[in-house]
Amino acid sequence: MSGDPRYLVIGAGNGGKAMAAHLALMGFQASLYNRTPDHTAAIKARGGIDLESYEGGPRGFGKLSLVTSDIVEALQGADIVMVVTPSTAHADIARISAPYLRDGQIIILHPGRTCGAIEFQKALCDVNCAARVTIAEAETFIYASRSDGPAQARIFRIKDAVPLAALPATCTHEVLKAIQSAYPQYIDGINVLHTGLNNMGAIFHPALTILNAGRIESTHGDYQFYIEGVTPAVARVLEVLDRERVTVAASLGIRARTAMEWLEMAYGSTGADLYEAIQNQSGYYGIRAPATLNHRYIFEDVPMSLVPIAALAQHYGVSLRGIDSIIRLACIIHRTDYWRRGRTLEKLGIEHLSVSELTHYVSEGNRDW
Amino acid sequence: MSGDPRYLVIGAGNGGKAMAAHLALMGFQASLYNRTPDHTAAIKARGGIDLESYEGGPRGFGKLSLVTSDIVEALQGADIVMVVTPSTAHADIARISAPYLRDGQIIILHPGRTCGAIEFQKALCDVNCAARVTIAEAETFIYASRSDGPAQARIFRIKDAVPLAALPATCTHEVLKAIQSAYPQYIDGINVLHTGLNNMGAIFHPALTILNAGRIESTHGDYQFYIEGVTPAVARVLEVLDRERVTVAASLGIRARTAMEWLEMAYGSTGADLYEAIQNQSGYYGIRAPATLNHRYIFEDVPMSLVPIAALAQHYGVSLRGIDSIIRLACIIHRTDYWRRGRTLEKLGIEHLSVSELTHYVSEGNRDW
Repeated sequence: MSGDPRYLVIGAGNGGKAMAAHLALMGFQASLYNRTPDHTAAIKARGGIDLESYEGGPRGFGKLSLVTSDIVEALQGADIVMVVTPSTAHADIARISAPYLRDGQIIILHPGRTCGAIEFQKALCDVNCAARVTIAEAETFIYASRSDGPAQARIFRIKDAVPLAALPATCTHEVLKAIQSAYPQYIDGINVLHTGLNNMGAIFHPALTILNAGRIESTHGDYQFYIEGVTPAVARVLEVLDRERVTVAASLGIRARTAMEWLEMAYGSTGADLYEAIQNQSGYYGIRAPATLNHRYIFEDVPMSLVPIAALAQHYGVSLRGIDSIIRLACIIHRTDYWRRGRTLEKLGIEHLSVSELTHYVSEGNRDW
Repeated sequence: MSGDPRYLVIGAGNGGKAMAAHLALMGFQASLYNRTPDHTAAIKARGGIDLESYEGGPRGFGKLSLVTSDIVEALQGADIVMVVTPSTAHADIARISAPYLRDGQIIILHPGRTCGAIEFQKALCDVNCAARVTIAEAETFIYASRSDGPAQARIFRIKDAVPLAALPATCTHEVLKAIQSAYPQYIDGINVLHTGLNNMGAIFHPALTILNAGRIESTHGDYQFYIEGVTPAVARVLEVLDRERVTVAASLGIRARTAMEWLEMAYGSTGADLYEAIQNQSGYYGIRAPATLNHRYIFEDVPMSLVPIAALAQHYGVSLRGIDSIIRLACIIHRTDYWRRGRTLEKLGIEHLSVSELTHYVSEGNRDW
């Protein structure tokens, strides 16, 4: 398959394994990097990953060209780097990759959560990375997947259309073109503020966890996260948080999708209000709650999604009383300062930008750090 | 029983019925007022209330001297007015009572929640009540009680020691002396800022309800409110809210009891942290959660307890991030503005007072409205 891009998948969680196996089964040269070698020992021994999926979906043995925990070796033979880790790892991945990146490489965050590409680019600049790479982020992860064993993956669903944006957006077309042969599903996400502010997990995950905190901890998550966890009152809170997110977006000149619009677009689910629309989403049936509050729904979604949304709001003069409350309770529950750990504008290096400067930066780039 | 005070109980909920019946059984002249006559029709027909209680406790038929929904008639023959209603009714009771109050009458709020006596006095002043009455508030309700039927009440427990304070505190002794023959359990609560800031329901009720919101609404409260609803993470939130309450008190020069100290004092329950101390309180076993979020744990405790605590904090420069978050989520869940409905310093008429002026007012009175 000469001429085809060579992929590196970073992160061997269930998402990374599904993607690596699927790429290999599609005929692409695919390698897999994971920081901790233990997690990929079985894959390395077997030389690849066994993939299962839905009827008519991809399946078989996905032979990988390389399985490594050496970032130098990993980046060497890669044209496109697919980062499939929790977003809390994005900045670290940028720092360890920076010395070994080459001109022309493309790095895609799956997904970026909110401001992932901006944080990644800032981290590269902070260590004076000279390589001219293109950074992009997907609005959401393309697969619904699970891991059935150390060298196994299972895909439940591949999404039809996933917005993706490069930083700056003038490079989005180049990225879409590069991955088109593997992933025609990605579509133009306008810019990384759009992909970052259309982050529905930011609205759903932390609030649903916190408004069911006692239940998660006392039952170890023995209930349906959406179907039983979203009641009319809980949905009212989600609606307010969602309105706040859309308002922050509006303050940046962005028309973000509401959660209702997203449920209809992604799942064809509608209703008189958010409660009904969620209850009508049949895909939510059977999804269990997390077994513990020590879960990425808080420790990832609060610092990497809600904090940057709240930081943008604060800077551009929008009051987010609901989102602030959720962040505060998350800080208390986890006894940590998610503002300090999270993507603040200072950490993203955008604390001095006006709205038009920020828009220019994500659209066309060319800013001095 | 000539010379004994004549009691009027306002409010025929289970607490008011228990108190009226008990007073009558102790030999005092006791009457009962309820705004809605329907609620007291059975008591009026029967002429009193059948009281049951724990072994060795008061029981029998408590014959009432008057059962009425006419406030004029109710106040006429009363020396001591026991207000046993939700605190959301305190201001209304003051307004309808004002024209008919007489010099020397004592009014006691059971309990005041936070700033109940101050609100009551302000409401009397606002309608130019000329009667020289004494207003006091109890820190908590003396009975644990339930209602078994329209003209029945059951007492589970009578507390040993309940702090009570008059407004101003120079009158506390007079009030304690007046009710001593019926209730030797009341002790000097120092002043109404002490009783109001030692309000544990403010800390426990709204937060436990909101951090289990999905569970309450989807199971209709089918779990143990404290034992299953207070998990380690939920208890961490309670600890922060409690610390905030104690800090507000400190800013007013008041050493409030912590929830841990209160659990030990009231129930002899101890533990390494608040989670343990709550789990070790055997009295919490078997207490079910509310069947709905439309419950006084929010609609009373937020505006009448958390809002005045937060308002004092704001005015005197204490930042309450946890309590603010709970108030905000309560506003969203109930789609109302509990700040507008609640006991703000403006409503209490104390918005221009310095700490020393406020202390003087609650201690010695003599302020101009």
